[in-house]
Amino acid sequence: MISVNPVYIPRLALIGVGLIGGSLLKVLKKENAVGEVVGVGRGVENLELALSMGVIDRYTHDAAAAVEGADMVVIATPVGTFEPILQQIMPSLKKDAIVTDVGSVKGEIVDAARRVMGERIEQFVPAHPIAGAEHSGVAASMVNLFVDHHIIMTPLAETCREYRTVVDQMWRLTEARVVDMDIELHDQVLGVTSHLPHVIVFALIDYLSKQENQALHYQFAAGGLYDLTRIASSDARMWSDICLNNKNKLIPIIREYAAELLRMADQIEADEGDKLIEEFQHAKRARSHVADYRK
Amino acid sequence: MISVNPVYIPRLALIGVGLIGGSLLKVLKKENAVGEVVGVGRGVENLELALSMGVIDRYTHDAAAAVEGADMVVIATPVGTFEPILQQIMPSLKKDAIVTDVGSVKGEIVDAARRVMGERIEQFVPAHPIAGAEHSGVAASMVNLFVDHHIIMTPLAETCREYRTVVDQMWRLTEARVVDMDIELHDQVLGVTSHLPHVIVFALIDYLSKQENQALHYQFAAGGLYDLTRIASSDARMWSDICLNNKNKLIPIIREYAAELLRMADQIEADEGDKLIEEFQHAKRARSHVADYRK
Repeated sequence: MISVNPVYIPRLALIGVGLIGGSLLKVLKKENAVGEVVGVGRGVENLELALSMGVIDRYTHDAAAAVEGADMVVIATPVGTFEPILQQIMPSLKKDAIVTDVGSVKGEIVDAARRVMGERIEQFVPAHPIAGAEHSGVAASMVNLFVDHHIIMTPLAETCREYRTVVDQMWRLTEARVVDMDIELHDQVLGVTSHLPHVIVFALIDYLSKQENQALHYQFAAGGLYDLTRIASSDARMWSDICLNNKNKLIPIIREYAAELLRMADQIEADEGDKLIEEFQHAKRARSHVADYRK
Repeated sequence: MISVNPVYIPRLALIGVGLIGGSLLKVLKKENAVGEVVGVGRGVENLELALSMGVIDRYTHDAAAAVEGADMVVIATPVGTFEPILQQIMPSLKKDAIVTDVGSVKGEIVDAARRVMGERIEQFVPAHPIAGAEHSGVAASMVNLFVDHHIIMTPLAETCREYRTVVDQMWRLTEARVVDMDIELHDQVLGVTSHLPHVIVFALIDYLSKQENQALHYQFAAGGLYDLTRIASSDARMWSDICLNNKNKLIPIIREYAAELLRMADQIEADEGDKLIEEFQHAKRARSHVADYRK
């Protein structure tokens, strides 16, 4: 049985042993908040590494077998795999086991959970840790990844309150700030502040690579553009999944943003210097508001 | 008279005492490569600061007076002010004085120089140091700003060879890498690798600030978006000037890039996950080529 104060999870199944799951489990192990951890993944090398790092205690390629007897299941795979994984694990999931996730999109995830879990939806506690790094895989995991980062929880009306508290307490051990948010709002805000910027940077690098004198462009991009394009090193599969799963929010966001860019091009064409200065100054001020939240 | 080996400039007029001009003069003073430096600007506070920092030896608000007797004139003001400044200084410019600039756009600058200088165009050596910082003004200037950065020179057929050598040698003192480039190519490459990214980031922050729940967007932008939007803190007037002066190159670049974004939105709409993964992976590889030039 899971205890709450302090949190102790006797057996945890971690499906997807990567940067996020690995970093969470490093904290739980360090804080003695977890007993046996069963890792589920495909790559043996990565799983063996997780084993040697002490992030997991054993591993299997079979998600259904892994959740047998587990008190908590953390699904930390690309969001597009969430539904099939849930289908695999439901038959062997304990009646009082908590299922939680770390997905960057919440609407589609929750819809999938409702479809697959039916009345057992009360066992599901959706969560999204806002953290990441340039590199992926358990090798990149670190105990301080979530410190001062946000964990957004989007609990459902049906979500069991006790389960919500356990997941909340678990994440607080990482020194993250746990906040609640409405599902629709989460997908919109993250669409604008995270998914759009990734699409922008992927498109920018793709555009750059299509230029004549490609090497010259790479060379001169190495200055200011280097920091700006860091997120283009993120996992391609993961980001494709995020875009597709948040498409209802993301497509209008991309199109509105592109319209903003085209409007700026029109202003430049019309030599509207004063308007440009005003907009650039406005952006500078707005960016200082962003900076205020860094404290 | 200017000497070349080592470079020594008896009297230099610095028009625009900001980050770039101030950082260059810090190096020239440190290397004993310059005698008297006359600063030209509008803000007395900034000029007094430059004086107390030893970046300039005296100052005036009158550009024409400043260039009297000067062996070299460095124009380091926003590119849109280049032509009127040149008109002011030509009558008092010595016959053997070198005029150079630091502008981010070269086509318009060179056209303006041809219009104003006529046959004296041989005295002009266009140059562009690829360096900058989040902050502006002489207060932000630093002696190592240009170390390992590129200085792109776009000499004209008419540019006096000796003068070109002096400017080249002067910039080498900053430990920058001096390279020659064709004017058109410069404006295209910088349009893609520098001007476009600035427009992208200004537009992104403007778009962010137009959202409902603005504060929430700022809050969640404070993570990954913070580094990405650093360049939105750049000087608004300077960037408006750059955009307007490179409009012939920049407008098609912005429109092509926006088309790229819209194409990605269409791919997401059509659920073309495989294509998205391919493009994102391509971007990741291309970004690693950019990284190769950081060495």
